[in-house]
Amino acid sequence: MSRKYVYLFSEADGSFKELLGGKGANLAEMTKLGLPVPQGFTVSTEACNLYYDNHEQVSDEVVEQVRQNIEKLEEITGKKFGDLDNPLLVSVRSGARASMPGMMDTVLNLGLNDDVVVALAKKTNNERFAYDSYRRFIQMFADVVMEIPKHQFEVIIDEMKHERDIKDDAEFTAEDYKEMVERFKDYYLQHHHESFPTDPFDQLIASITAVFRSWNNDRAVYYRRINDIPAAWGTAVNVQEMVFGNMGDDCATGVAFTRNPATGEKKLFGEFLVNAQGEDVVAGIRTPLPMEQLAEIMPEAYAEFQRNCDILEYHYKDMQDMEFTIENNKLYMLQTRSGKRTANAALKIAVDLVSEGLITEKEAVLQINPKQLDALLHPHFNEQSLKDGKVIGTGLAASPGAASGQIVFTAQEAKEYSDLGKKVILVRLETSPEDIEGMALSQGILTARGGMTSHAAVVARGMGTCCVSGSSDVTFRDGKVFIGGHAYNRGDYISLDGTTGKIYDGQIATEEASISGDFETFMKWADEHRQMKVRTNADTPKDAKKALEFGAEGIGLIRTEHMFFEADRIKAVREMILARDEEGRRKALDVLLPIQQSDFEGIYEVMKELPVTVRYLDPPLHEFLPTQEHEMQELADDMSMTLAEIKEVIASLHEFNPMMGHRGVRLSISYPEIAEMQTKAVIRAALAVQKRLNISVNPEIMIPLVGNVNELNYVKTVVDRVAQEEIEASGQELNYTVGTMIEIPRACMTADKIAASADFFSFGTNDLTQYGFGFSRDDAGNFLNDYYEKGVFEQDPFVRIDEEGVGELVKIAVEKGRSTKPNLKCGICGEHGGDPATINFLYEVGLDYVSCSPYRVPIARLAAAQASIRNPRK
Amino acid sequence: MSRKYVYLFSEADGSFKELLGGKGANLAEMTKLGLPVPQGFTVSTEACNLYYDNHEQVSDEVVEQVRQNIEKLEEITGKKFGDLDNPLLVSVRSGARASMPGMMDTVLNLGLNDDVVVALAKKTNNERFAYDSYRRFIQMFADVVMEIPKHQFEVIIDEMKHERDIKDDAEFTAEDYKEMVERFKDYYLQHHHESFPTDPFDQLIASITAVFRSWNNDRAVYYRRINDIPAAWGTAVNVQEMVFGNMGDDCATGVAFTRNPATGEKKLFGEFLVNAQGEDVVAGIRTPLPMEQLAEIMPEAYAEFQRNCDILEYHYKDMQDMEFTIENNKLYMLQTRSGKRTANAALKIAVDLVSEGLITEKEAVLQINPKQLDALLHPHFNEQSLKDGKVIGTGLAASPGAASGQIVFTAQEAKEYSDLGKKVILVRLETSPEDIEGMALSQGILTARGGMTSHAAVVARGMGTCCVSGSSDVTFRDGKVFIGGHAYNRGDYISLDGTTGKIYDGQIATEEASISGDFETFMKWADEHRQMKVRTNADTPKDAKKALEFGAEGIGLIRTEHMFFEADRIKAVREMILARDEEGRRKALDVLLPIQQSDFEGIYEVMKELPVTVRYLDPPLHEFLPTQEHEMQELADDMSMTLAEIKEVIASLHEFNPMMGHRGVRLSISYPEIAEMQTKAVIRAALAVQKRLNISVNPEIMIPLVGNVNELNYVKTVVDRVAQEEIEASGQELNYTVGTMIEIPRACMTADKIAASADFFSFGTNDLTQYGFGFSRDDAGNFLNDYYEKGVFEQDPFVRIDEEGVGELVKIAVEKGRSTKPNLKCGICGEHGGDPATINFLYEVGLDYVSCSPYRVPIARLAAAQASIRNPRK
Repeated sequence: MSRKYVYLFSEADGSFKELLGGKGANLAEMTKLGLPVPQGFTVSTEACNLYYDNHEQVSDEVVEQVRQNIEKLEEITGKKFGDLDNPLLVSVRSGARASMPGMMDTVLNLGLNDDVVVALAKKTNNERFAYDSYRRFIQMFADVVMEIPKHQFEVIIDEMKHERDIKDDAEFTAEDYKEMVERFKDYYLQHHHESFPTDPFDQLIASITAVFRSWNNDRAVYYRRINDIPAAWGTAVNVQEMVFGNMGDDCATGVAFTRNPATGEKKLFGEFLVNAQGEDVVAGIRTPLPMEQLAEIMPEAYAEFQRNCDILEYHYKDMQDMEFTIENNKLYMLQTRSGKRTANAALKIAVDLVSEGLITEKEAVLQINPKQLDALLHPHFNEQSLKDGKVIGTGLAASPGAASGQIVFTAQEAKEYSDLGKKVILVRLETSPEDIEGMALSQGILTARGGMTSHAAVVARGMGTCCVSGSSDVTFRDGKVFIGGHAYNRGDYISLDGTTGKIYDGQIATEEASISGDFETFMKWADEHRQMKVRTNADTPKDAKKALEFGAEGIGLIRTEHMFFEADRIKAVREMILARDEEGRRKALDVLLPIQQSDFEGIYEVMKELPVTVRYLDPPLHEFLPTQEHEMQELADDMSMTLAEIKEVIASLHEFNPMMGHRGVRLSISYPEIAEMQTKAVIRAALAVQKRLNISVNPEIMIPLVGNVNELNYVKTVVDRVAQEEIEASGQELNYTVGTMIEIPRACMTADKIAASADFFSFGTNDLTQYGFGFSRDDAGNFLNDYYEKGVFEQDPFVRIDEEGVGELVKIAVEKGRSTKPNLKCGICGEHGGDPATINFLYEVGLDYVSCSPYRVPIARLAAAQASIRNPRK
Repeated sequence: MSRKYVYLFSEADGSFKELLGGKGANLAEMTKLGLPVPQGFTVSTEACNLYYDNHEQVSDEVVEQVRQNIEKLEEITGKKFGDLDNPLLVSVRSGARASMPGMMDTVLNLGLNDDVVVALAKKTNNERFAYDSYRRFIQMFADVVMEIPKHQFEVIIDEMKHERDIKDDAEFTAEDYKEMVERFKDYYLQHHHESFPTDPFDQLIASITAVFRSWNNDRAVYYRRINDIPAAWGTAVNVQEMVFGNMGDDCATGVAFTRNPATGEKKLFGEFLVNAQGEDVVAGIRTPLPMEQLAEIMPEAYAEFQRNCDILEYHYKDMQDMEFTIENNKLYMLQTRSGKRTANAALKIAVDLVSEGLITEKEAVLQINPKQLDALLHPHFNEQSLKDGKVIGTGLAASPGAASGQIVFTAQEAKEYSDLGKKVILVRLETSPEDIEGMALSQGILTARGGMTSHAAVVARGMGTCCVSGSSDVTFRDGKVFIGGHAYNRGDYISLDGTTGKIYDGQIATEEASISGDFETFMKWADEHRQMKVRTNADTPKDAKKALEFGAEGIGLIRTEHMFFEADRIKAVREMILARDEEGRRKALDVLLPIQQSDFEGIYEVMKELPVTVRYLDPPLHEFLPTQEHEMQELADDMSMTLAEIKEVIASLHEFNPMMGHRGVRLSISYPEIAEMQTKAVIRAALAVQKRLNISVNPEIMIPLVGNVNELNYVKTVVDRVAQEEIEASGQELNYTVGTMIEIPRACMTADKIAASADFFSFGTNDLTQYGFGFSRDDAGNFLNDYYEKGVFEQDPFVRIDEEGVGELVKIAVEKGRSTKPNLKCGICGEHGGDPATINFLYEVGLDYVSCSPYRVPIARLAAAQASIRNPRK
């Protein structure tokens, strides 16, 4: 017994989505609901996969099942393929498990040839319609199936208009279309060296093959990558009896939503064209009419459509996006699916559906893609103000949000302007760690170089600052910046949209994001079901405040080194690095201690009793040293050293692979006095804020880059000794814990041993991905593009956790860790902590919390809530 | 019921080695055999660990058990601690599970004080002996227990000699020693601010504490690291009744071996001193006499000792190293252990013991430490010739063996000299990949910079070429090299010993290693029991030949890139890298193809039908480009490019972390034409050699750095297509396989999936260690020294595999791989493949073969044989 690859619409239902794709399953479901659906059948996604397994050949078995189903369709419709009395024409459309609008191919009017077109003209008594349909079919088939450049067909149409001195397709007569068919066939023959195929079944198999092939066209591959859709899913193919919206003025075709997809308003929203085929609505040659007018032109069909809308929305419990055709006043439903909508609309619809009693709060929470919230969390341009905006260039949409301000070229200038209360946009070739303070003071950042993972992009996303990176429209000359050819001086205004990558001339007003109204209601429902905590990564009181507003329940990561780059402390940091011995280092550390202590006090004062995780110094020391000769000279003067000596120290710190070098806990083992200073700062700050606010502060000390429990033990001994001394001296009580990041593969393998000494684990999945793959994030861009192009990788493992590899390491570490300490607290503080798919995975693995940048906190809350609703923890 | 920490010698036996250390277990065993052993007890290694767990305090429980055992010892001996009639004196000695000669501390004559010394003098009727013993005790106790600088005691002795105008200790009278005791006690008081302790039990506990503490002294820690001894073992402490070799001329003390430890000759070998304590034999103040003379001086004691030797050798079935003391003509055995011996002696003894019927062949195979064979495998200096050698400097013993030749300063000079048939020593500041060819042509390599893992050291070890690296005695000036202050010109002769790190002036004759005689017999026995195959890493026919001589059973790794550096091909390699498109690359690859093919033919001709594993291009491309401006200019001229363009290409290939960058399989995915060329070369060469020699060649194609099965699939498709084309075109048959290196942690996690596409796995444990630890091998030297010093790490994970971390990754990969393919062939080709402890681990994990550099093949054969004998596979 062979496998079933082809299903009549009447043989399936909405539950067949995996096998028959979204469109196929919904056509079957609508059939079941008794809605007027032109009948047909669906070739399954398994047949698509078989096609690829089979070196891109449709197997004989699938061909045979298609033939059998065409016969069944002929029986159902009473029409016959190639018949000269009552010919069957069909459409052939793709339909994957997830909606991929416009990414794959479609063929309409299939079944026509020189004889059938005559029969169709006779049967419909509409020769013009018949030949118009035929020429459309030739055009689509040539383009989609034979990959013949479609431009030439447009040239022929234009020539014929010119010859006849007409402007609009509507002016073509039946005779004109007849001639057009001839000219099209000539061109086809000339280009393809074969006549246009006349056998409808051959046409059909060729078209099915073309749809399968289109699953791997460039834009489909790209769309899948962006939307986390696996290549292994494949597409189904829907073969459906044609109905015609282009047979006359009692015909129409259109697209409509049950609610407004931009605002969420509960009102039918859409457009249609009289006497047209579906492609015309999309093509934009004629201007479609709003749905309201259909009520006037074809009231009966409109009323029936309205009824169908109610049935479908009630049935699917979600806003629907439908295609329909009216043939001689009779309505046909061609497609329904849950409609795409803006974030605001999504929230309103979800909240409305609950109050209408259509869905529960849980269902509402599941209905929104967490990523969609991102659009609501950043400052955005005032709509009115944006209308006058002039785009002068584009770059990568590196960090979302909108910003407007005066151009500055250095971090120093950013500080000067900002001290005067001015808003600035930092415009640079690229940024480096020394620019941190200037970046933090800027409204937005624009760079000429660097990708989505460049320093500017990563830091800006972390700060929630708008950033457009790697814009090839930006060049520097004569102390000016040229953007798209326009010269700008320091102090001139520009505006950036980090969500779209657009650069605008002049000032555009922006509005802050807030969580209120439907958004607030919705997040409350989400939080009621959420079982995993959501913390934030924050290095400043400002970040911490923003994260609290967005619902953070603690800090999962303070990168203490970010504090080291600010102007008032970088000098002491450099003195520490250049010190010749421990005594010299201690002297410099004594300068840093009160500064770092006051940093922590600022953050504790915001977070109050919520847990605050402080990561100890992590990056290699050379990152703190100057890279420019004049800066080196300044440092030499400061330190009473020669330039040559400074250069020698810098050279001695050079590493071949700094990512795998002297950093993280390795620094604390070589220089335990650094860990001592940081412990004093963490503990003294906590004691001071406890006393001042009369609360209990909860610092969590986190040691980075541990691969062996001995490393943790060595530093923990130092930390505990210093902490005990400070606490005893204060006469207060203080709860602090000492844990470790898990970001080295070896740490995962030996997590049972590490857990014996760690109060908590926090997964650093950025580094774990780097070491787990052996990929340097700074360098991988060089070859990952080749990987995507050649289908070796589908996903960027730095964006979504690689479940089967890096995820397996995380899983092993959690299991081993809890085999030693059953209640070991486990979290994540890598950038993956803000990715919804990753959050779902980490929930399944058993993590207690995720931590992400402030602007991702609401997204993480929703993703965590969805994970819990899908699979509640006991 | 409390734990037992202290055992009388009569309560234990030889099987207690883990608990009581080697010395303690052997004292118990000798007691059991009825040999004349002064009685005593052993404080266990568990007590030592308890001491460390307990913040370096001996626990009350242990103190109490020591007290009880002193009472038992008093009963056995009839003597009493501090007694004024018959005082008990004891020695306190360390004794770990593995022998660590001289690394830890000893205290003799314990129990003496101002009263007891009088009693001892009276009882022995020998005042001089009694006070000599007392001053020795004060001296040792002060040094070992109180860490008082011992130099001052020697100063006092010298002063007293000067005052008395005598030269030899033997001339001191009893009165002199009495005065010496007073002066010693004064110095002790003055330095320590407390009087010398008078209570024997206090003396004992302090001494036991000192021995525990000495387990972690610097030299013990270093010795453990070098000899793979875990810190967790701890040391035991042996407390034994004193017997005295210094009571008069009918007393003696000595050390002897049952066979000659230098040659293996079956004849008692050792030395002794009359009227002395054990320390005098070692101290070298008096010249000891050979054992033969003891037969004349004390014939009865000698005869008894000879009998005891026979008993012990028969009992332990191995050559023994014993300490003895003769007190008033009565012989006492103080220690026995298996004796250290040279590699040659070890082989002779093992083979002799088998022919004497004392041990089986299996036992003989287990008796030799595989690492010891290394001394026999490299060229060594002719002993006669070496006697005239003058050492002019030292460096790191980076690659073993001896070499002599004329100094050259560049790879080019090495080639020129070598073309004239001259032997050369390449002397450089440091080496780089471009020097490969010159290094291969040199007898030895000497560098001024770079450690044990520098380029020179790693490459030289791989080639089996002698290398002394990082010698601070070497400087360059005025076109000369200065070694230890002597100037040498190009063409002058020097000699190197890479086993000791010594640099000699002039020529010294060398001798090649060969496996013959006892060595050959022994290796035959080893091979009979071995179940794991041993292959070699070899890049040239010369290496392959050497490895075959040493018993290699195939090649586990050809690094094809090493072939790319030679002068006749580096130009084409650079042209390939600089090519602007695939066409340009293919043109350059066409030049490389016949060269690479002939490389492989040379190797196949040596290896015949043995398997030959070829790894495809692995390093990042920038490694092939010039680093010096003048070379860049030459390249620019060759390529008709500007210098600026060349620099731009080099800059574009720069990576922040090249170890995690565009290398390995990633190159083949970006540039599949490289894999195509290499496949053609591998397959065409195999077909040509098959035909020429009428044999079946067995190439194994190995894809490096795979982390995801898709990477392997992509390249395997290319390889299989090209291979099939070549094979079909030849009309021959050819067996080839395609496998992968496993060196990325993610590959281990997903080995089940990778195994589906791989014919074999070969573990690249160098890189797996780098990624698994997040350590760059080039940079880790910067901080690993701190790790060793602070006790964070005990072992270098690049030398011996880290079993619990990296080893766990290997284990998981083998298990997952074989869950998909039960008979999956698994091997290793990292440097760990030549490390005996690693080989044992990999055998337990189930690997089919190890591959190592030619000079390590016999070591690996022996280690693999021992693993099989210990735990035979079914």
